[in-house]
Amino acid sequence: MHALVERLYPLCRSITGDGVRSTLDIVGESIPLEVTEVPTGTDVLDWTIPREWNIRDAYIKDATGRRVVDFAESNLHVVGYSVPVSATMSLAELRPHLHTLPDQPDLIPYRTSYYSETWGFCLAENTLKELPEGQYEVRIDSTLAPGHLTYGEHVIPGQVADEVLISCHVCHPSLANDNLAGIAVATALAQRIENPYYTYRFLIAPGTIGAITWLALNRERVDRVKHGIVLACAGDRGSLTYKRSRRGDAEIDRVFRHVLAGRDHTIVDFTPYGYDERQYCSPGFNLGVGSLTRTPYAGYPEYHTSADNPDFVSPEAMADTLETLWDAVGILERNRKYHNTSPYGEPQLGRRGLYGSLGGRSDTQQIQMAMLWVLNLSDGSHSLLDIAERSTLPFTVVADAAKALHGAGLVKE
Amino acid sequence: MHALVERLYPLCRSITGDGVRSTLDIVGESIPLEVTEVPTGTDVLDWTIPREWNIRDAYIKDATGRRVVDFAESNLHVVGYSVPVSATMSLAELRPHLHTLPDQPDLIPYRTSYYSETWGFCLAENTLKELPEGQYEVRIDSTLAPGHLTYGEHVIPGQVADEVLISCHVCHPSLANDNLAGIAVATALAQRIENPYYTYRFLIAPGTIGAITWLALNRERVDRVKHGIVLACAGDRGSLTYKRSRRGDAEIDRVFRHVLAGRDHTIVDFTPYGYDERQYCSPGFNLGVGSLTRTPYAGYPEYHTSADNPDFVSPEAMADTLETLWDAVGILERNRKYHNTSPYGEPQLGRRGLYGSLGGRSDTQQIQMAMLWVLNLSDGSHSLLDIAERSTLPFTVVADAAKALHGAGLVKE
Amino acid sequence: MHALVERLYPLCRSITGDGVRSTLDIVGESIPLEVTEVPTGTDVLDWTIPREWNIRDAYIKDATGRRVVDFAESNLHVVGYSVPVSATMSLAELRPHLHTLPDQPDLIPYRTSYYSETWGFCLAENTLKELPEGQYEVRIDSTLAPGHLTYGEHVIPGQVADEVLISCHVCHPSLANDNLAGIAVATALAQRIENPYYTYRFLIAPGTIGAITWLALNRERVDRVKHGIVLACAGDRGSLTYKRSRRGDAEIDRVFRHVLAGRDHTIVDFTPYGYDERQYCSPGFNLGVGSLTRTPYAGYPEYHTSADNPDFVSPEAMADTLETLWDAVGILERNRKYHNTSPYGEPQLGRRGLYGSLGGRSDTQQIQMAMLWVLNLSDGSHSLLDIAERSTLPFTVVADAAKALHGAGLVKE
Repeated sequence: MHALVERLYPLCRSITGDGVRSTLDIVGESIPLEVTEVPTGTDVLDWTIPREWNIRDAYIKDATGRRVVDFAESNLHVVGYSVPVSATMSLAELRPHLHTLPDQPDLIPYRTSYYSETWGFCLAENTLKELPEGQYEVRIDSTLAPGHLTYGEHVIPGQVADEVLISCHVCHPSLANDNLAGIAVATALAQRIENPYYTYRFLIAPGTIGAITWLALNRERVDRVKHGIVLACAGDRGSLTYKRSRRGDAEIDRVFRHVLAGRDHTIVDFTPYGYDERQYCSPGFNLGVGSLTRTPYAGYPEYHTSADNPDFVSPEAMADTLETLWDAVGILERNRKYHNTSPYGEPQLGRRGLYGSLGGRSDTQQIQMAMLWVLNLSDGSHSLLDIAERSTLPFTVVADAAKALHGAGLVKE
Repeated sequence: MHALVERLYPLCRSITGDGVRSTLDIVGESIPLEVTEVPTGTDVLDWTIPREWNIRDAYIKDATGRRVVDFAESNLHVVGYSVPVSATMSLAELRPHLHTLPDQPDLIPYRTSYYSETWGFCLAENTLKELPEGQYEVRIDSTLAPGHLTYGEHVIPGQVADEVLISCHVCHPSLANDNLAGIAVATALAQRIENPYYTYRFLIAPGTIGAITWLALNRERVDRVKHGIVLACAGDRGSLTYKRSRRGDAEIDRVFRHVLAGRDHTIVDFTPYGYDERQYCSPGFNLGVGSLTRTPYAGYPEYHTSADNPDFVSPEAMADTLETLWDAVGILERNRKYHNTSPYGEPQLGRRGLYGSLGGRSDTQQIQMAMLWVLNLSDGSHSLLDIAERSTLPFTVVADAAKALHGAGLVKE
Repeated sequence: MHALVERLYPLCRSITGDGVRSTLDIVGESIPLEVTEVPTGTDVLDWTIPREWNIRDAYIKDATGRRVVDFAESNLHVVGYSVPVSATMSLAELRPHLHTLPDQPDLIPYRTSYYSETWGFCLAENTLKELPEGQYEVRIDSTLAPGHLTYGEHVIPGQVADEVLISCHVCHPSLANDNLAGIAVATALAQRIENPYYTYRFLIAPGTIGAITWLALNRERVDRVKHGIVLACAGDRGSLTYKRSRRGDAEIDRVFRHVLAGRDHTIVDFTPYGYDERQYCSPGFNLGVGSLTRTPYAGYPEYHTSADNPDFVSPEAMADTLETLWDAVGILERNRKYHNTSPYGEPQLGRRGLYGSLGGRSDTQQIQMAMLWVLNLSDGSHSLLDIAERSTLPFTVVADAAKALHGAGLVKE
């Protein structure tokens, strides 16, 4: 996963443009992607696909001709969606177009201006301080023109059409944790899932406008999404944070509460700010989509700066994120509600070979307790996860018990 | 407000009589009052308007002709609704008619006997102790005769007929905190409200029988009362206590929880004892009426004694009660449920001038967060107060956000 | 009660057989029992009545002819439902049929094998250790033959057909706390109840198969059981434990929470393991049946061993269990939901003689407060127990207040 982060890191992504296409090409080497191109001007929900932005070069040259700020060194140097500029101006004229982080003077900030035509450069405060007065040559070789918005999907068909959505944003340029780590973990998860019960849809799309576009183009089938996760900031060394869906008690929320119980973690309620859960959990859709991150957005000083580089993400952290997702998938896949077919009194487990035969002992095997719990609570209103939580038995033991009872005809779906 | 308390203090009020009328006259100088007179014998719910009680003088004279207990000194000296008496008797004969507070030997207690014909005097235990054996002349120059029960109302018409009721009892004689302070604060509040959304009804009526009479005479329109507060003990130096309505989660309960959150306060559940919330919250009416006091009834040693005098109430405490009520009114006035008109995905706030244009920053203005919250939760089931509590944003910011969104057509009522 | 435990202790009970019949005969001397005999082979819910088991003698003789294990000394020595055996074998051959408790080497364990044909002996680990190698004569003089399952019922007719079920298992041989103490306490409770409101049904039946048989034979009238208690382990010196019904908030659960509040106790949620609450609370029946024990099953080292003898149960503990049940019965009998017939405002209690006449005092008698609470909450949705818990007044005071109000026509059922 870390190698993928390093390979994707140099590309200059934005909400449109060739950086996104190159990223999807590289991810597509690991998992087949269906790529969708949506033309500029297309109406998507309350929004319109903007013009496509591409950039080849950008710099600020001082009076000696030296590039004091250079896009070739870091694509963060240019404000995303900057219109082309080619001019010479004094530092005072240039100053309103320069963005720095005075409190983190060595770092380059990340800034964009998608929907307001402007241009700008981002640079370290310390670099700015050293710029002498004088004339500067300013050049941004970008294009903002009719084109497309691009996103990619990888679908793993399941036994049912009901979907689990894993969504990652792809619009950030050279920022590793946000969100190349998310893309890398999602890719690894997609490679691991085989013959699932649910259909799994991995969506790699620009933030906000990309999710909105996907929702607009799939509006009639959005209700197939039964569960979902927005995956971001998946690689920093902080512990895991799960943000609940707007519903607050969707099955995905319950699943992550269960999976995270044994891990160092934080669970927070839904807020309408963050990543694309904002769109999936808008009140009209209100999907059962939560968000998994390690340290949440804006929660670490490297956030949206040049310090969010591949060194900032750790292979161990990405592996931990992946295993957590894998455990969640494991519960989603097996979680069902059953009906006890013999609900009056306990069925005689012994004659079906499901129970120890020598009575009077004060201990009972976990699997036998699990069978009693599944029988007792399988009235159509309790899922296996409910039963696991109520009984404090491990989910896998409860699911195994349900499988044995199902085999004996004592419960049915 | 304190001047009003001092001016009303000497009057001898009871559940009927001229003391109530004089009190309403004085309050009427500040806010216009519609005064209702209900004749003795009128059936009101399960009760009947009693005879009207008036008193001119009362005393106990010792053998030397000295007034050892004198109504002219304090109207608390006479048990409320005492029948006339004019007799000479020994101290032993008189003794069953004398009420003192042995544990507070310097204070005169407050006693009444509205519905059982008797007479009595209240005096300090220390006064009683000094009375020598001997004959005493006892006189109560009162009348108990057909007349009226009197109450006053001040109504501020609103945009809607739905009402907010502020109710104060007016039946206590020379007791300042209970309830002249409540009347004074209510009067000040009435003077401050202008062009409200709700119709505000201030009711100044005798306790129990007065509220019951008003309910009986307004039974068909009681359901206009959407919110209400029984205001009492509004001026002592203790912190505020809010007592929930019988419903427990009425909007008024939510409003006071929110308003009091930043203040030193106590919130208690409804009990069927206290002031006229007992009547408004009887199960047949079950109105959304809570009660606001500073120290609750019987919670301070001066309660129902001669120590509850104008010195006991403080101008600062009354001002604090008033400001709290004012904040509550401010929320009631603006609290609405809206519907997001663009509930699928987030609407594009930027092109409507409702959002900062430069992306990538990790901070977001409070008002912008409030707009996202209002959009996300305005599904018809969340009020602005719900949204403020859920988001932990100030109510006024949330209400301002809703106003901006309403102006842009993004939410509707 | 302790005398009954001692008298019943020596009998060799099992899920069928003469030991149960003798036990019911002895209990029947205190309370009349209707005894039901259900033939072997009868289908009961998912189960079938097994063959009846009886035993006359059993032993292991060593080479000298000495009985080293002797049923006559303790009926725990034989595994319940052992098939007949008469053989001579080496200790090595015998060994798989011997059950001991290595961690409690002086105690004889209790073991059964109802549904798997086998035989075995239970003995102290220390006895086993002293057995020399050699040949042993092994004999179990038992019969396993078509017969009956036996249970007994004692019914106290009430004013209504709705039933309170008190259920005790009777299938354990010489074990005192589990469950002779339960049977003794139930018997004493039955003797104390006179002219009840509910119909009380005491069921003394073998565990599991007995309860299942009773449910099968009474399936059409099971819904008459409105409340119930499975009573077991009623005599050890530990504090009381109440196990909630599967419903979790059944009236019986509320009653025991209230009754136990003033006692040293533990309340646990329902689990589908334990005593016959497993059957009554199976999802098809889902009755309001909880379980009362002192120390729960398997919670004390003497559980299911020869140390659970009459010395292990204390008369004081049984008396405490009985008084707790009696208090619970007292609440069940009086707990009702009333309707306030005068719900608009407070009714005038004074003119009905229900209220103190002298106003102004800051104290109010408990019974008067209880009347206000009953009036305020008697809207058909609050029971007297609800009102007692809400008001924190004693249940008996609330019930007395309701009685007074009912007498005055102010509430009705």
